[in-house]
Amino acid sequence: MQSAGKQLRSIWPGDDRARVHIIDQTLLPHELTIVTISTLSGAARAIETMQVRGAPLIGVTAAYGVALAMRADPSNANLNAAMSRLAATRPTAINLRFALDAMCEHLLTLPESSRAEAAFDRASALAVEDAKLCHDIGVHGLGLIQDLAKNKKIGEPVNILTHCNAGWLATADWGTATAPMYMAHDEGIALHVWVDETRPRNQGAALTAWELDQRGVPCTIVADNAAGYLMHAGKVDLVIVGTDRTTASGDVCNKIGTYLKALAARDNGVPFYAAVPSPSIDFSLESGAKIPIETRAAREVTHMSGLSAAGRRETIAVARPGANAFNPAFDVTPARLVTGLITERGVVAASREALAQAFPERSGHAPLMPAASRAARF
Amino acid sequence: MQSAGKQLRSIWPGDDRARVHIIDQTLLPHELTIVTISTLSGAARAIETMQVRGAPLIGVTAAYGVALAMRADPSNANLNAAMSRLAATRPTAINLRFALDAMCEHLLTLPESSRAEAAFDRASALAVEDAKLCHDIGVHGLGLIQDLAKNKKIGEPVNILTHCNAGWLATADWGTATAPMYMAHDEGIALHVWVDETRPRNQGAALTAWELDQRGVPCTIVADNAAGYLMHAGKVDLVIVGTDRTTASGDVCNKIGTYLKALAARDNGVPFYAAVPSPSIDFSLESGAKIPIETRAAREVTHMSGLSAAGRRETIAVARPGANAFNPAFDVTPARLVTGLITERGVVAASREALAQAFPERSGHAPLMPAASRAARF
Repeated sequence: MQSAGKQLRSIWPGDDRARVHIIDQTLLPHELTIVTISTLSGAARAIETMQVRGAPLIGVTAAYGVALAMRADPSNANLNAAMSRLAATRPTAINLRFALDAMCEHLLTLPESSRAEAAFDRASALAVEDAKLCHDIGVHGLGLIQDLAKNKKIGEPVNILTHCNAGWLATADWGTATAPMYMAHDEGIALHVWVDETRPRNQGAALTAWELDQRGVPCTIVADNAAGYLMHAGKVDLVIVGTDRTTASGDVCNKIGTYLKALAARDNGVPFYAAVPSPSIDFSLESGAKIPIETRAAREVTHMSGLSAAGRRETIAVARPGANAFNPAFDVTPARLVTGLITERGVVAASREALAQAFPERSGHAPLMPAASRAARF
Repeated sequence: MQSAGKQLRSIWPGDDRARVHIIDQTLLPHELTIVTISTLSGAARAIETMQVRGAPLIGVTAAYGVALAMRADPSNANLNAAMSRLAATRPTAINLRFALDAMCEHLLTLPESSRAEAAFDRASALAVEDAKLCHDIGVHGLGLIQDLAKNKKIGEPVNILTHCNAGWLATADWGTATAPMYMAHDEGIALHVWVDETRPRNQGAALTAWELDQRGVPCTIVADNAAGYLMHAGKVDLVIVGTDRTTASGDVCNKIGTYLKALAARDNGVPFYAAVPSPSIDFSLESGAKIPIETRAAREVTHMSGLSAAGRRETIAVARPGANAFNPAFDVTPARLVTGLITERGVVAASREALAQAFPERSGHAPLMPAASRAARF
C-alpha cells in the first residue's frame, strides 16, 4: 500500500526465505518499527501479542509461521506441532484455520525435502490471494460509495464510519473495510471517515486513523460511545466494518462494540455493511452464538500505552490498581442488522440463501440447522 | 458517604464560610486530593475542568460559586456577573440553571449586607436537598433490585450495568444511579455492577469503580464496547444510568454512549432505567433534540492521563499527534427506549403524561408541542 509516499506492506518474507518481516503494530502510530521473525514461536507470539492482528493478516502470518517451522524441521511431527501451536494463538478469527488448513493440505502431499520452499511459496500465494480478495471487495464496495456520492452536493463528503482496523494493516494489502474507501479516494470522491477509537486496544485511533492520514483520506477519531450521537445527527451515510468470522447465515462476528454500532445504524436508517472476504466465512456454523469469543487480559482495559510528553513510550494505569476488569474481544452482529456483505464476488444479503448462491462450492459443506434454532439465537 | 471507613463528601463549605472544599475528581482513582476554592472564578474553573462534574454536583458547586462571589461583592452587578460566568461553564446539565435560578431568586430579595451569609445557607440547603432527592431515588430504585433478587438463586448476584459516574461523587450524597445499588448492598442483596469505563474521560473506570470498590460493592470495569456482548450473553439484569437533562416527554440526555447501551438493552430485553432527580427535568423542552450538546476538547480523545509504573501522573498520546478528533460529551436516549425514570417521587414511565402526573406543580410551565413534532424527532 502507498503510505505517505512509501510502499509499505504488513508482512513480507526475507530474501533468504528463512525469515519474515512484519510491522510491529503495537507501536503504531508513534513508531513504524519492522520486526523480523525467524521461528515458529516468534510467529505465534507476534499473533498473540498482536504485533500482527486482523483476521486476514493473522491467517497469512500463521502460514508464514508454518513455513518457518518447515525451514527448521520439515517432518510431519513438526508440521503437526506447528499447526497446533498456531491454531491456539487466537480463537475467534476463522481465517487462521483456513490458512493452516491450506498449508497443511498442500505440504502433506510433498516430500520433506521440498516442504520449506513450498511452504514459503504457498504462504506468499495466500498473501497474494488475500490482497486480490481485498482488491475485489474494494471494487464492489466502491459502488456503494459512488451511489451515495451522487446525492451529495459538490465537495460535500460521503461520511463513512468504521470500527477497529480492517485496513491494509489487517490484511496483505488494501484492507477489507478500507478497500472501498481507498478506491473512492483514488477516484476523487470526497470522503470523510469517522474512526471509532476501538477500546480497549485502540486499533481505530492507533491504526485506522494512521493509515487514512498517511493516504490523505480525511478522517476524525471519535470515542466508541459517539457513534449513536453521530448517526442520529445525520453525520454518517454508511458504516463499513470488517469481520473475524461470518457465519453461513450472515451473522457477523467482529471487534467488540460492532454490534452496538449496528444497532445505532438500524435505529437511524444508516446502511451497515461488513466487508467479508470468503476465507472469513465459516460455512460450518449457522449461528454467531456458536463462535468462540476470545477473552483477553483485564490489563488491556485498566492500562493504556502511548507516548508521553517527553516522547517516551509509557504504559499508564487508567483505573485503580487491582480493579476488576473483563475484556471480551469480539461480539456478534446478527444478520438481521446487516444491510449487506461486501464479498469479493459482490455485495450480497446477509442470509444463508445469498451466501450459498455466491459461494456454492463452499456452502454445500455446511451442516444444516433447522430454521427454528437459528431464530432462537437472535 | 461512608467510603472505606471514612466519611467523605463531594463538596462542603469551610468553617469560615469564605471557602469551599472539593475532591479533585480529575486525580481519582490514584489520588484523593482536596482542593479549596475561594473565588467565583475558582468555582467556575473547577466546573469547566471537571474537578467537579455530574449534573447535581455542578449545580451545588455553582450555588457555592455564587456564595463566594457574594462574599467578595454582594452587589446586584456582581450577582449578575456571577450568574453569567457560572451559566457559561457547561451547557448540557440543566441542574446548573436550576441552582443558579434558585440562588438568584433568593438573593435578589435580600439586602446586600446579608447576601453572603444567606448565599452560603442557600447553597448548603441545595446540597441537603440534593442528598435527600438521591436518597429517595435510592429507596424507589431499591424496589427494582429487590424484585430482580427474588428470581435469583441464593448468592447469585443481581447484575447491574451503569455508564459514566452518577454516584455520590456526582451529587451531594448517595448518587442518583448508585443510590439504589448502595441501598441494596446495605440490605445484604448480592449485587454485581458492570461499570462502563466511559471514554473519553473514563468516569466509570476512574470514579464509579473507585466508589463501588471503596464501599465493597463487587464491580467489574468493561470497555464501553462490551455492553452489547454482556447483555446478549444474559449477564445484565438491569441498566441504571444518571441524566444531565431529561425532557418533559422523557427523553434522557446523559453521557455520550448512553443511547448505545439503551439500544442494546432494548434489543436484549434488559430493563433500562434512568435515575432522575426532578432538578434534572427540563419541563420547558419537549424533545431531546433541543438539548444543547456540549463538545469538549479533541485532546480528551487523543490523550489519556493515569499513573505510570513509576507512580508518576502522566498524560500520554494514544493517537498520532495532530490527528483529528471530535468529542461530543452527551447523547440523547429517546423515551421509547427507557423502561422507566426513577425519580424522588417513585418510578414513573418516560412519558409526558407520567412526568406531568408526578410533578404537576412543574409540568404546567412547559410549552406544549404538538405530538406530531415529538414523534418526528426520534
